[in-house]
Amino acid sequence: MSKQELVVLGQDAADGCCPTLLSAPLDEGTAAELALVFKALGDPVRLRLLAMIASREGGEVCVCDLTPAFDLSQPTISHHLKLLKQAGLIDSERRGTWVYYRLLPDTTDRLAAVLTRPGAPAAPAA
Amino acid sequence: MSKQELVVLGQDAADGCCPTLLSAPLDEGTAAELALVFKALGDPVRLRLLAMIASREGGEVCVCDLTPAFDLSQPTISHHLKLLKQAGLIDSERRGTWVYYRLLPDTTDRLAAVLTRPGAPAAPAA
Repeated sequence: MSKQELVVLGQDAADGCCPTLLSAPLDEGTAAELALVFKALGDPVRLRLLAMIASREGGEVCVCDLTPAFDLSQPTISHHLKLLKQAGLIDSERRGTWVYYRLLPDTTDRLAAVLTRPGAPAAPAA
Repeated sequence: MSKQELVVLGQDAADGCCPTLLSAPLDEGTAAELALVFKALGDPVRLRLLAMIASREGGEVCVCDLTPAFDLSQPTISHHLKLLKQAGLIDSERRGTWVYYRLLPDTTDRLAAVLTRPGAPAAPAA
């Protein structure tokens, strides 16, 4: 997987805004960028980590609170977090002993947008 | 990848409806189901195939119209289409010589929903 972090998806859409997977063919560059993010989401542990980070009151989670939720080693959890970060889904900040993670909602917003059918009603968030 | 086809995602959410990745921790079963679909989207060729199928006027595409758009063999394209179908993203029907593919919008709708922030405005489809 590329080390490059993803900031904006689909910036090269014909009209400069809001491409969607469902309304027009996808150019190779946008497809490669989007695939990187979807691939990061294509693992149950990473999805659970992302949900824990995104749903946390206060908006950030200490890695020390993430690791105990899984029957996995700290290096394995760190590797999954690194892939989420490389995909532009989360960011991290070290403070003292621990690293704290938070969601980058622009990326999930963009994925939700590209998966929304043109003219479809708003996705029903719980 | 599991051969199981995915019909409904996140059916086991606490309230029976509309779980989102971003509003609550994710149980292992839902994470596994969602990961299967995101993994299917984690490839540029599959994303481009899905976009071609989803955006086609009339709602379906002959495999004979998909293959020429890629510098890949027919068996490779068929393999990618099979993974999209196993993930519940597309369906297919054989008529005569050719197989025709169409989007299963319930699955993309569900993905858009789980990626939508609670309280966020509707995803801006192009």
